[in-house]
Amino acid sequence: MQGEGSERSMTRRDLLRMIGLSAGGAAMYQAMNRLGFAADSPYQGPPALQGAPRGTSVLILGAGLAGMVAAYELRRAGYTVQVLEYNHRPGGRNWTLRGGDTYTELGGDTQHCQFERGLYFNPGPWRIPYHHRGLLDYCKKLGVPLEPFVQVNYNAYLHGADAFGGKPQRYRTINADYRGHVAELLAKATRQSQLDAAVSKDDQALLLDSLRQWGALDQNYAYAAGATASNRRGYDKPPGGGLSAKPVDSRPLQLHDVLDSRLWSNLTEGETYEFQTTLFQPVGGMGKIGEAFGRELEAVIRYNAKVTAIQQDEHGVTAVYEDARHPGRSMKARGDWCICTLPLSILSQIPMNVGASMAAAIGAVPYAATVKIGLQFKRRFWEEDEDIYGGITATDLPINTISYPSNDFNSSGKGVLLGGYLWGLNAYQFTAMTPGERIRRAVAYGSQIHPQYKAEFENGMAVAWHRVPFTMGCFAAWSDEMRAKHYQNLCQVDGRIALAGEHASYLPAWQEGAVTSALDVVGRIHQRIVAGASA
Amino acid sequence: MQGEGSERSMTRRDLLRMIGLSAGGAAMYQAMNRLGFAADSPYQGPPALQGAPRGTSVLILGAGLAGMVAAYELRRAGYTVQVLEYNHRPGGRNWTLRGGDTYTELGGDTQHCQFERGLYFNPGPWRIPYHHRGLLDYCKKLGVPLEPFVQVNYNAYLHGADAFGGKPQRYRTINADYRGHVAELLAKATRQSQLDAAVSKDDQALLLDSLRQWGALDQNYAYAAGATASNRRGYDKPPGGGLSAKPVDSRPLQLHDVLDSRLWSNLTEGETYEFQTTLFQPVGGMGKIGEAFGRELEAVIRYNAKVTAIQQDEHGVTAVYEDARHPGRSMKARGDWCICTLPLSILSQIPMNVGASMAAAIGAVPYAATVKIGLQFKRRFWEEDEDIYGGITATDLPINTISYPSNDFNSSGKGVLLGGYLWGLNAYQFTAMTPGERIRRAVAYGSQIHPQYKAEFENGMAVAWHRVPFTMGCFAAWSDEMRAKHYQNLCQVDGRIALAGEHASYLPAWQEGAVTSALDVVGRIHQRIVAGASA
Repeated sequence: MQGEGSERSMTRRDLLRMIGLSAGGAAMYQAMNRLGFAADSPYQGPPALQGAPRGTSVLILGAGLAGMVAAYELRRAGYTVQVLEYNHRPGGRNWTLRGGDTYTELGGDTQHCQFERGLYFNPGPWRIPYHHRGLLDYCKKLGVPLEPFVQVNYNAYLHGADAFGGKPQRYRTINADYRGHVAELLAKATRQSQLDAAVSKDDQALLLDSLRQWGALDQNYAYAAGATASNRRGYDKPPGGGLSAKPVDSRPLQLHDVLDSRLWSNLTEGETYEFQTTLFQPVGGMGKIGEAFGRELEAVIRYNAKVTAIQQDEHGVTAVYEDARHPGRSMKARGDWCICTLPLSILSQIPMNVGASMAAAIGAVPYAATVKIGLQFKRRFWEEDEDIYGGITATDLPINTISYPSNDFNSSGKGVLLGGYLWGLNAYQFTAMTPGERIRRAVAYGSQIHPQYKAEFENGMAVAWHRVPFTMGCFAAWSDEMRAKHYQNLCQVDGRIALAGEHASYLPAWQEGAVTSALDVVGRIHQRIVAGASA
Repeated sequence: MQGEGSERSMTRRDLLRMIGLSAGGAAMYQAMNRLGFAADSPYQGPPALQGAPRGTSVLILGAGLAGMVAAYELRRAGYTVQVLEYNHRPGGRNWTLRGGDTYTELGGDTQHCQFERGLYFNPGPWRIPYHHRGLLDYCKKLGVPLEPFVQVNYNAYLHGADAFGGKPQRYRTINADYRGHVAELLAKATRQSQLDAAVSKDDQALLLDSLRQWGALDQNYAYAAGATASNRRGYDKPPGGGLSAKPVDSRPLQLHDVLDSRLWSNLTEGETYEFQTTLFQPVGGMGKIGEAFGRELEAVIRYNAKVTAIQQDEHGVTAVYEDARHPGRSMKARGDWCICTLPLSILSQIPMNVGASMAAAIGAVPYAATVKIGLQFKRRFWEEDEDIYGGITATDLPINTISYPSNDFNSSGKGVLLGGYLWGLNAYQFTAMTPGERIRRAVAYGSQIHPQYKAEFENGMAVAWHRVPFTMGCFAAWSDEMRAKHYQNLCQVDGRIALAGEHASYLPAWQEGAVTSALDVVGRIHQRIVAGASA
C-alpha cells in the first residue's frame, strides 16, 4: 500500500479502512488524526465482516434504518438474515406521506392524504447534516439523490405573539440588529479602555477592526442607519436599475426593542453542529431512503409482522409474531442471533428474556412527544408574495415552526409546507385532538403570520407521534442521568440479543444514530460469532 | 377589483400591478407598503405597455439579459424588434462553459473545454439572490428550473497563508470562536457594570441571557471547552451510535489566535443582503437563462453582428455592423428607436452621436478586472474526503476563492469546482498570463488547501474578463463620485437612444441590474412613443 496521492483512485476513507483492517482501530484513529479527518465523523465506512461462518442466521426485528442497515451488512457478509416489520412498508420513522397514502393512528382516526401529485410531507426526519456520513454513504450506495435543505432563510420570519405587536420580523433584520448592537457595545467598551485587563492593546486594535466589519458598524463604531447596515438588514427601497433606482436605507431597531422582543432566541439554531450548512433532503421525500433499502432487501423483509414476544435460549432467538392486519394467529421466526431495533416504547411492552440491567434500561427511557402537520395550499404564496424560498419561520405560537419546501423553488402551482412542528406541552395538547382539529388549529395559528392561509389552504395531514402505532413516541428522550445509568447496559449484547436504533446512540432522533448504532452492533456480534466459531 | 383574499388566485403582485395600472405609481407604492411588500424588491412585474403604435420598431444592441428582456417585453407589447449580437450565442455574460465549447480570448489564445458531460463552469454570474425578483420571474416564465446555491458552508475552510501555520480552519470553528469570545467579553463588561450608562438594568439582564445562548457561553458566561461550544465549533470525536459512541469535546481557540489570524474577515459575506440565504443557481448552469431567452427570441436575434457605429437622426437610429467572423463588409440595421446594451467598455469605442453628457458618462466608468478559473478533478474529493458539500473556501492566496459545486451532491465520478475568482491586482497579473499558466497557478495555489489537487486534477478553463472580446472587462466599477456626476446622464433617453445593462443600475455586476434597467428603459421609451403618437 502506498501513501495518499500515489494511489490516485484511493480516497482517504479507503485508506483508513485498509489501515483499520490491517492494524486495528488504534492505528486507524492515529491515521485519522494525521489526515485531519477525525473530527468529521466517527463513521469510517461499513464494517469489514470477514469470515462469517456458513449458515449462521440473524433475525432482525424492525425494518427501520437500523434494522435495514444491519440486514444489508450482515447479508453482504454472508449471513442468513430475516427481518420482521410491523408496517406494510419499509423505513419506520423514515417516512414520507404523499397523495393517496392512508394513515391510521392509535385511537382509530384514519387520514387519507390528498396532496397533489409530486407534493409530500415528512412526518419524521426531514434533514440530513453534512457530517452524518453513514447515512450519506448509504444514500450514495443506494442511489438516493440529495438536494440541499434550507434551514436558515434570512428572509423568513421570526414571530412572537407579543413582539412588535405580533408583526413578523424578517430573520435578517433581527439578526443584523442584534449583532450590530452587540458589536457597538463591545467596541464602546474597548475604546473606553474597559478591556485593558483582559485584552492586549494590539488585540484591541484587531478587535475593533473586526467588530466594525462583523457588526456592520460605521466609521465611528456605531450601528446606525446607512448603507452598511441596510446591506445586512435590508432596505426601505432596495437598489435597482435605471433612473429611479437609487436605494433608500432602512433604520435599525433600537437595542431595547430587539432585546425585549426575545426574538434573538431564534438566531442560533443554524449555528449548531446539527443544523449548520450544508444540510440535505432526499429528492422526493425522506422516505426515499427507506424505500430504496426496502427494494434492496425485498427478499428478506416480512411486512405486517407484529412481534409479541422474544425468547432466547443458548442456541438462538425466537420471535413470536402475528399478522398486524389480522391479529390472532401466532407465528414464529428464529435466528441464531437477534438484532432488535424496536423502539424502547414498544419493546418495553414485549416479553423478552434479557438480563436485569438491559431490561431496566429498556424501561427507563421516555419517548418525546412531537406533532408534525403538513398543509397544502393552492399556490406557493410564501414565494410569490413574500420572497421566502425554503427555510424556517420560528414563532412562539404552539405551532413553533413553519417550514417552507426546499424543492421546486419558483414553480407555479400548489405547495405543501410544514405548518407545525410541536414539542412538549403543545405536542401533548395537539396529540389529544383529532387530526382534523390539529390541522384547523395549525391553519388558524399560521394565519397570524401568513394571512394568505385562510384563502389558500386546501388540506393537510397531522401526525402525533405518541399516537403512531409502530413507535408510540418520536424518539428516546435520554437525560444525562439516565444515560449515565443505563446507556452502556442498553448497548451490551445480552446473550444472543443486541439492540440497535437511535435509542442506542448519542444522536437521539437522528437517523445517523440508527445507522451507526446498527453498524456498531453488527461489528460486535460478528466478532462474537467468529470468535465462537473458531473456539 | 376586490381585496386580497377574496380573489383567491390573485397574488399580491397581481394586485399591485392592477393598482399600478389603474391608479399610477404613487398609489402602487402606498399599496406596496400596506402589504408589507415594499422592502422586498423594487421590481413589481413587467411593465404594462399598452397602446404601442402599429409598426413602430426598436433596434436593440446586445443579446445579453438587458437586451433580451427589452426585446421580450417590447415584442409582447406589439413593437417590431431586432437584436444585434456580437457572439454566436445569446446571453452575453450570462454564460456557461461545457465540454466541447471553444473560447478565444483577446490576444488569440483559444481554449477547448474538456469537461465531462454534465459538468460546467460559469465564467460570469453564478448566483441569484432571493430578492432579485425580476430575474426570478423571467426564470419562472421561461421555465428555467432553479436549485439552491450554497454560499456559506460551515464545513468549508478559511485559509490564510500566515494563519495557523497555513493550515486551513473550518468556517464553523472560526465563526463559533470569534462569536463566543465576543459574547464572553461583552458579558464580562456587562457584569462589571460597565454598560450601566448605556443600557438599563432590565435590558442588561436580557442581554446576558441572549449572549449566553448566542455565544454558546457556559453557566459562568465563559466561552470554554465543553458540550455547548463543541455543538457549534465541532467535536474532537463527534457523537455516534453504539458502545463507543460518546462524543469528545473540542477546545476553543484563544481570542488572540482568532484575532491575529485575520480569518474573521471572512465571516460576514453570507450576512450581506446579496449573499444571504436563499441563493439560487439554474439547474445545469447560469447560461440556461440566456439560452432560454435565446430560444424565445430566435426569430429576432442576429448573431455574429459586430456593431461598429451608431447614428441617430430625427426619425430613427441606424447601427452599422459587420460579420464578427468575417469582418470587412458593412451592413446596416435601423429602428425608430434604439436600446443599446453594449458594455460601456465596448460602447466607448464605437462612434455614436449622443449629447455631451451621455458621451461623458459612457467614457467615465472603468470596468473591473476579474478572473475565474474552472477546474475538473477525477473525483469529488472535497465531499469524499472532507465532507464539504458546496459553499466557499476563502483564502488570502491570489486565487481568493474555491467554490465547490452546489449540485450533484454525494455523486460518484468527476467534478468541476471554481478554482479561483481573482480580483484587483491579482486579476491583472493572471490576465497577463496565458490561460494554461493561469490554470497551473490555480492548481498550485489550491493544493496548499487541498493536497488532493495534485493527484486528482484533470483540466481547466480560465476566463480573464479584460480579455473577453465582447466586454473587455467584467462589470462597470462605479465609484460614488462617478455615480453622482454621471449616472443620471447615462440613464436619460438621448434623442432616440437609451442605454440599459448592469452599468445603468445600482446593482453593478448583477443580472438583476441588467433586467431592471431594461424594464425601466422600456417603460420610459414606450411612454415617449405613445406620447409622441398621440401628440
